[in-house]
Amino acid sequence: MKKKYIMAPGPTEVPPEVLAEAAKPVMHHRTPQFRRILTEVLDNMKYVLGTTRSVYILASSGTGAMEAAIANVVSAGDKVIVGTIGAFGDRWESMAKAYGAAVVKIAPEWGYALKVEEVKAALDANPDATALFIQLNETSTGVYNDVEAIGKLTANHKALLVVDGISGIGAQPFYMDKWGVDVTVIGSQKGLMIPPGLAYVSCSEKAWKVIEANKTPKFYFDLKRYEKSLTKEKMPDTPWTSAVSLIMQQAVALRLIKEETNEKVWERHAKLSKAVREGIKALGLELFAKENPAVVLTSIVAPQGIDTKILVKKIRDDYGISMAGGQGKMEGLIFRVGTLGYTDRFDPIMGVAAVEMALKEMGAAIEIGKGVKRVMEVLMEDYK
Amino acid sequence: MKKKYIMAPGPTEVPPEVLAEAAKPVMHHRTPQFRRILTEVLDNMKYVLGTTRSVYILASSGTGAMEAAIANVVSAGDKVIVGTIGAFGDRWESMAKAYGAAVVKIAPEWGYALKVEEVKAALDANPDATALFIQLNETSTGVYNDVEAIGKLTANHKALLVVDGISGIGAQPFYMDKWGVDVTVIGSQKGLMIPPGLAYVSCSEKAWKVIEANKTPKFYFDLKRYEKSLTKEKMPDTPWTSAVSLIMQQAVALRLIKEETNEKVWERHAKLSKAVREGIKALGLELFAKENPAVVLTSIVAPQGIDTKILVKKIRDDYGISMAGGQGKMEGLIFRVGTLGYTDRFDPIMGVAAVEMALKEMGAAIEIGKGVKRVMEVLMEDYK
Repeated sequence: MKKKYIMAPGPTEVPPEVLAEAAKPVMHHRTPQFRRILTEVLDNMKYVLGTTRSVYILASSGTGAMEAAIANVVSAGDKVIVGTIGAFGDRWESMAKAYGAAVVKIAPEWGYALKVEEVKAALDANPDATALFIQLNETSTGVYNDVEAIGKLTANHKALLVVDGISGIGAQPFYMDKWGVDVTVIGSQKGLMIPPGLAYVSCSEKAWKVIEANKTPKFYFDLKRYEKSLTKEKMPDTPWTSAVSLIMQQAVALRLIKEETNEKVWERHAKLSKAVREGIKALGLELFAKENPAVVLTSIVAPQGIDTKILVKKIRDDYGISMAGGQGKMEGLIFRVGTLGYTDRFDPIMGVAAVEMALKEMGAAIEIGKGVKRVMEVLMEDYK
Repeated sequence: MKKKYIMAPGPTEVPPEVLAEAAKPVMHHRTPQFRRILTEVLDNMKYVLGTTRSVYILASSGTGAMEAAIANVVSAGDKVIVGTIGAFGDRWESMAKAYGAAVVKIAPEWGYALKVEEVKAALDANPDATALFIQLNETSTGVYNDVEAIGKLTANHKALLVVDGISGIGAQPFYMDKWGVDVTVIGSQKGLMIPPGLAYVSCSEKAWKVIEANKTPKFYFDLKRYEKSLTKEKMPDTPWTSAVSLIMQQAVALRLIKEETNEKVWERHAKLSKAVREGIKALGLELFAKENPAVVLTSIVAPQGIDTKILVKKIRDDYGISMAGGQGKMEGLIFRVGTLGYTDRFDPIMGVAAVEMALKEMGAAIEIGKGVKRVMEVLMEDYK
């Protein structure tokens, strides 16, 4: 018997009542019965995103929602700015180029956040830029950006602010309208606590004007079709067949989030990730994030002589916990411990315990229990 | 208490053991444990499609797979032929135009199939056409096309044969390789017996040469990325986060199909749809399909004075069965009774009984029991 756990930055564990929802009989999507559920999901997503604007629900992974953003706001020949602090920021660049945009790139060293003054300089130097693409949280490095400060810059610029909130939203503070975010994208398998397969997009009025004029070839991700379907027969619908079982699950998960409240969800993620960080530091290991450490996961530099591909495999195959290794150029060099979604105070304890035991077995100079002790102390303090 | 049933042409009812699979804990997609399941699904999909070529699994609805076909084989300025016999054929046209293609359209009156000689004439008249888009089964009218005969025409033509098999595959005979189909697309919520949210694409060698040279902007649906991910670390993967719970369900559903065998699945759909047709005719109602009546659903012309929007609503809200009304220009004029997916001999009996009772209550001149009697006779004969 091996109990299985997910401590990855997505997919995350799904609450039992949300899992059970998927075992209910499938509903037909073009019925008032289903569309009432869709209405509830879209309303609660507005609450999660902090917006009064329409929310569109896509049957796709988060990358599909990123493409929806690109295909609806970018026209071939546009100049766009990409602020990338890791592998998912680089994806914005690849996508924008695939759609024929000229990309001005801001790319600090991995482990750092975007510097607001560098973003300002790029916007000032490129008054013709039509969009700025960034991440709320960069999952590959475990670093978040100061979206609020960046939103103040684009407010007075032609460029739309497009934010990949796939891993960050539902875990850390985010206020789409208040911060002036023009396009927000998010996936279902992170803070939203359901399996992968749904994604969401929401757009400001400033973005919508661009979208209405945009002629880039698209169909499935054409947001105008989604907007139109929201008001069909006075009840929300989706332009293509809704992923009904995932949407039924999302309804249940969003009720849990709303009951806890955004603020308490953010606070919980902050506490749990802090506990992991403190435990890891107490063990003498180095955090990979040099600033703005993520709340959805903690990225950790491998001790001398440890290949994190082997470490992650061992923790998964021997102990039953799925963590994440390094992505792209950090493969083998860092590992990442998630504290995202359906999580509570024993997750950091379990995660740090697994890291300690596995590193010790692999021959690293680890004093067993030292990290976990610190995790417990921090939790007792923060949960007082 | 009202028992709920789906007799729509998708989503269809999902077997209980397939529903239950979605209630299992979510797996992380980048693990050998999950990738073994993915391997099984892709292998069994080859069996269902009748192909030795790669099968790509998309987190999207069927429309997403149609767009993957278009975005990968169509270049702006291409001339393509669309053979449309209903609303989903028209979708091929809209999509091809959205991607800048010039469309030569073959469009027989609704209720009829594509005439092979007309398709031949269009191909002969347009030797520069790069693709021919058709449906295996047209869900909006309940008519299927002779894909085998059409495949013989494109075999000796430049044009790729692109087949929307979303509702037809897994219900009626289909042999991708043997019939010379170049691009096949299919969705999960029909004959494949899982909820909506997954779709599949497979491409012939002839198609792959076009796809490799194609420069149309795309990312999420870029099939080259899917092909590449199949051989990553010697085990299939998906380029973007896999919709793990749906894929776990698909594994179970495909085992059921493989156990029954393609041939028996096709035979079952043929028998059940025939029983519905015979029952409907015995009631004195008119079938909408003038030829090649679908096996996945039966389309029926409303009796004088009956609005099928009201009929379908009554059957759903009063009796608990989701059927389908007419789409597009047939809205209110026809209704459609599905016999698709997880179905057996009592489905046609229940479906025709519901139609009889609802029509009678709505004042149509129906002799109660006459249709059901005929359904039972046909079933007893065919199941002998």
